[in-house]
Amino acid sequence: MALFETGEYLRRIASTKQRMEAQGIEVLIVSDPANMNYLTGYDGWSFYVPQVVVVSLDAGEPVWIGRGMDANGARHTTFLSEESIVGYPDRYVHSPAQHPMDFVADVLRGRGWDTKAVGVEMDAYYFSARAFAALRKNLPKATIKDANLLVSWVRIVKAPQEIEYMRQAGKIVERVMNTALDAVAPGVRECDAVAEVYRTQIRGTEACGGDYPAIVPMMPAGEKTSTPHLTWTDEPYGTEIAVNLELAGCRHRYHSPLARTVYLGSRPPRKLTETAEIVVEGLHAALDAVRPGVRCEEVELAWRRVISRAGLEKESRIGYSMGLNYPPDWGEHTASLRPGDTTVLEPNMTFHMILGMWMEDWGFECSESFRVTETGHETFADVPRKLFVKS
Amino acid sequence: MALFETGEYLRRIASTKQRMEAQGIEVLIVSDPANMNYLTGYDGWSFYVPQVVVVSLDAGEPVWIGRGMDANGARHTTFLSEESIVGYPDRYVHSPAQHPMDFVADVLRGRGWDTKAVGVEMDAYYFSARAFAALRKNLPKATIKDANLLVSWVRIVKAPQEIEYMRQAGKIVERVMNTALDAVAPGVRECDAVAEVYRTQIRGTEACGGDYPAIVPMMPAGEKTSTPHLTWTDEPYGTEIAVNLELAGCRHRYHSPLARTVYLGSRPPRKLTETAEIVVEGLHAALDAVRPGVRCEEVELAWRRVISRAGLEKESRIGYSMGLNYPPDWGEHTASLRPGDTTVLEPNMTFHMILGMWMEDWGFECSESFRVTETGHETFADVPRKLFVKS
Repeated sequence: MALFETGEYLRRIASTKQRMEAQGIEVLIVSDPANMNYLTGYDGWSFYVPQVVVVSLDAGEPVWIGRGMDANGARHTTFLSEESIVGYPDRYVHSPAQHPMDFVADVLRGRGWDTKAVGVEMDAYYFSARAFAALRKNLPKATIKDANLLVSWVRIVKAPQEIEYMRQAGKIVERVMNTALDAVAPGVRECDAVAEVYRTQIRGTEACGGDYPAIVPMMPAGEKTSTPHLTWTDEPYGTEIAVNLELAGCRHRYHSPLARTVYLGSRPPRKLTETAEIVVEGLHAALDAVRPGVRCEEVELAWRRVISRAGLEKESRIGYSMGLNYPPDWGEHTASLRPGDTTVLEPNMTFHMILGMWMEDWGFECSESFRVTETGHETFADVPRKLFVKS
Repeated sequence: MALFETGEYLRRIASTKQRMEAQGIEVLIVSDPANMNYLTGYDGWSFYVPQVVVVSLDAGEPVWIGRGMDANGARHTTFLSEESIVGYPDRYVHSPAQHPMDFVADVLRGRGWDTKAVGVEMDAYYFSARAFAALRKNLPKATIKDANLLVSWVRIVKAPQEIEYMRQAGKIVERVMNTALDAVAPGVRECDAVAEVYRTQIRGTEACGGDYPAIVPMMPAGEKTSTPHLTWTDEPYGTEIAVNLELAGCRHRYHSPLARTVYLGSRPPRKLTETAEIVVEGLHAALDAVRPGVRCEEVELAWRRVISRAGLEKESRIGYSMGLNYPPDWGEHTASLRPGDTTVLEPNMTFHMILGMWMEDWGFECSESFRVTETGHETFADVPRKLFVKS
């Protein structure tokens, strides 16, 4: 089942080629799994071995190059024709003697692309220092250029069908958050609550099954709410503690993340309730600042004005562009809502705005995923914005 | 809660330093999240931003360097003292202007390590080409060496407590596999069956909660069994089709993967039942070949002798070292069970032996996770080795 019309992939490839021309790149080696998916439809958990999609200005169709056993996966998920799917032998896998990028270089040579200006994604997760060294050694006649985020910047404005998948992910994350708010309770093992969350993420809705989010459920409790990325234990949740919930729904690799905080007990500390009120007020102010033509840094400023009146500060950014992605991150690494980011908002850009205050031994989180509309914003999920208290 | 005695971490660091000395490396920059965990205990889903552990021959304790908001995570999970936990400001995150490795280089300079022989893990997933370029630029006086897999080779022989966690993961994967065999049925949406599997993975057992495996459940059905790494859809399972199940239990980041195939229907094709019989016979032969002193390639040969008598061939390797890990892979990328791998088996090495036959439009999988014992092998899970048929 194709998730997008072939015409949509061709449009993406054409936009990519425009950017390649503007940057003087003739052949682009795409390693980022989200970018590979975006340009061809390829979807599989095979990014633990090197694999690429190659876009050349002189070729109509990109070429998928991956491990031999995954070529059938490319046949199942992409619109590519047989001559554009190339598998490498298994002896290249995890071998000290040879690297899959040696093979990729051979394919480039075979198509006359080894003397061109070749772009690579220097900071993509799965493009290692050794992968780059192997390419450089095997392509001595190429001019190698940094094309980091080139395709990611094409991705920043979503097509209507992409927005639809994110809305579906938003419906999923509503269920996921409600599952979490139900499951987290004093005496329940953290792993058992997380298990219910996972189950709901993957079941999705009756109409739309769930996909695996690019980040696991984050549900730190008590003192561990002071830091955002610790995963669960098998200890039971205590009482008179806060639990941060940073969760996502995912549909066909498109994400809608959502964060809330729940307090287990009847006596939430005043610093927590007061912070929650200010953070929610700041969230509203920042969302209200969203509309086409506004710069990312202006959205952050609307937030900062609110919290600074209350004497609070937040060093870290308050949001980032996101959508289609694979582990380890649903963020796109392009625009961030933070001082100095002058990216101008356009309709159908999509962000996760996350107001997380991680203090010395406690924390509070509240977030929304949204798209920029013609006149403002549309959030993808509908869950009350507040500190939940379960007593 | 410390998962290992501090003495165990110190033993690992000492072994690492021995290998560093042997390779002429004075300062080792460890980027692989599993290696970071192995040396310090650090555990968090923060590897989507650059972070490292630095081991120097002239320092007793490694230094953790990561994103500021994750420093509390290091305080919670590692044995390191406060001066060995260094957070970088958020402006380094996903910024075109500066890279976290610029900061890492500053820390090295501050400790007088910038003129040393510095090892880096050239092919680690989260050590990008740009990360390497930033280090090289900022450490002009250092001699930079490839230390890829240096720590991974220390990890290959497990400590008794590590084996215990893998046994616990084996108990979890027994439940997981039985859940999958129950849940997969004609008319059930793939996502709903996978949801039950996920739930069981994370619940674990009464005594031991589950952790997230480094690879999502793989449960391809029908024609998609011809390729191993496609994830699920929300289509219902059909009848008279095979479903491959490649699943894992995970405990404190230690894995026990397990693969089986189930046929939904009453008329499994003869090519499938015959292949299943031969593959299981080959699995037994290969497991029987496991004992200390045997080379990895000899284990593979025992398998190949069985299947070649039946006229079958398998190009890809039949197994690999595994244990502690993070997405995207539970494999350690050191020893593989394949021709040419002369690694000599030692007690408490641990492998996933996976006999997967992926044909043009069908496939069959059967696997075991095991440790090498003093006299042979111990498998971690107990599930019948056969083609399951649900009619």
